[in-house]
Amino acid sequence: MRSTGTRTLRRAETPARLERRVRLRLDIAYDGTEFSGWALQPGRRTVQQTVEAALCQVLRLESVSTVVAGRTDAGVHARGQVCHVDVPAGVLEQDGAAGSAGPALESLLRRMTGVLPVDVRVRAIAVAPPGFDARFSALSRRYAYRICDDRALIDPLRRREVLAWPRRLDVEAMNAAGALLLGEHDFAAFCRRRDGATTVRTLLELEWTRDRLVVARVVADAFCHNMVRSLVGSLIAVGEGKRPIGWPAHVLAGRTRQPEVWVSRPHALTLEEVTYPSDNELAAQDGRARRVRTLS
Amino acid sequence: MRSTGTRTLRRAETPARLERRVRLRLDIAYDGTEFSGWALQPGRRTVQQTVEAALCQVLRLESVSTVVAGRTDAGVHARGQVCHVDVPAGVLEQDGAAGSAGPALESLLRRMTGVLPVDVRVRAIAVAPPGFDARFSALSRRYAYRICDDRALIDPLRRREVLAWPRRLDVEAMNAAGALLLGEHDFAAFCRRRDGATTVRTLLELEWTRDRLVVARVVADAFCHNMVRSLVGSLIAVGEGKRPIGWPAHVLAGRTRQPEVWVSRPHALTLEEVTYPSDNELAAQDGRARRVRTLS
Repeated sequence: MRSTGTRTLRRAETPARLERRVRLRLDIAYDGTEFSGWALQPGRRTVQQTVEAALCQVLRLESVSTVVAGRTDAGVHARGQVCHVDVPAGVLEQDGAAGSAGPALESLLRRMTGVLPVDVRVRAIAVAPPGFDARFSALSRRYAYRICDDRALIDPLRRREVLAWPRRLDVEAMNAAGALLLGEHDFAAFCRRRDGATTVRTLLELEWTRDRLVVARVVADAFCHNMVRSLVGSLIAVGEGKRPIGWPAHVLAGRTRQPEVWVSRPHALTLEEVTYPSDNELAAQDGRARRVRTLS
Repeated sequence: MRSTGTRTLRRAETPARLERRVRLRLDIAYDGTEFSGWALQPGRRTVQQTVEAALCQVLRLESVSTVVAGRTDAGVHARGQVCHVDVPAGVLEQDGAAGSAGPALESLLRRMTGVLPVDVRVRAIAVAPPGFDARFSALSRRYAYRICDDRALIDPLRRREVLAWPRRLDVEAMNAAGALLLGEHDFAAFCRRRDGATTVRTLLELEWTRDRLVVARVVADAFCHNMVRSLVGSLIAVGEGKRPIGWPAHVLAGRTRQPEVWVSRPHALTLEEVTYPSDNELAAQDGRARRVRTLS
């Protein structure tokens, strides 16, 4: 009985264990308006659920599991989202394109476009290089936050991605305040806490420019939950003259979440780009990123 | 009896006839997706109906009648639409701002923003200079037509204003073909006919540029019905290599509507700007524009 049981178990396991799997990198853009964010949530329409369902349909698989670079919140958009997914290598050969994966990937991309709803698009699909992990290999994430503070420039066509602000903002003051936040810090004051997760991050860029719209370019190695929107909210308070230039840095130094920090609205936030190191640096970056960081 | 009748008629007419009226210029932007175009149509949601209803509500008038620079079709957007409306001068003084209209106009603009739906915004309201007519004083209208012909650049956030095209377009060929259409011509071949209306127009600019998107900049003194979309449709056929560079000019010379000319989809078209002469040239331009033109 015991040996039979073992054999049965092995038989069932063998195909999956031995079948070669291939990791795909997907570059994705979406209008977050009608999504409850990226991550799977029971009973909610999320980007992850939508993309995984489309992959299952097109690849004729029962389930797939994506890993994403930036877990965007409800209402947040993406132009440069990246995820990876491991699929049986055989699915790339079913079009008779053994050898080169190119035609199979091109066909997969076309079929994904046909299956996905209009508010999410896969822009590119490639076989990921060895060591690639969409989340842990990433060097940095870049977000944009867009504000229109001039009634004469309000554009209804862009209302889903631009915050309409009723008063003129002082971009110079916002940049002076933002510059004080750059570098490696514990950003706990600007994050919604998750148990066991670090809030130590390196803020690489935070710059506002005015070119009709007032746009923030925010780059960090990674962001914790609500971090961009809390940073933006604190800087808007400075831009309005309601808080002094040193206030966001003062909040940061407190290291505890502050109820006075406004979490700015999600619809004006877009994940624009995720950067990765060159292929031979992927695994090393993965190792560094997985370490839970603490400030020395 | 007769004289009494005359007196009654006069009494009823007097207030309207003698009341001073003031012409307002409104600069308007809208997302045309959910509108059946600009012009009033019974039972349809149009921009004109929406703007006039908001003006009536805010100014407490029973009816107003706007005159517009560009009668956009269903689904077409605007960032630089201009209309005028004549209202009793008294409505600008009801906030106690007799003398300068500035504060009353500022208040009117704010109240319009509060009353209008999110897909249409008044960007500016001013007292029009003498001789100004939104339609007949205009020197030119500028439209943009936006196409994305690269799957790697598809942006779901802009899907309401950009045509997704599945094949790469040859911008150089489209520009060569467009250049042959410049100048004053009878554009009947590219217009849906309206009885009694001329189809003689001067096409001032037609240039395609590629900067991620492929965008046409199209400027004319005025456009007839479907003209921009028909011009764009004929140039896309050239850009795809389906028609030779000389084909649109050949169609133009035929002076009759051609069923082979595809009227490109409306959602990628936006009225970007209307230009007017300096204030002392307004009335003269109005006179010129009202003449029905024929080609000599």
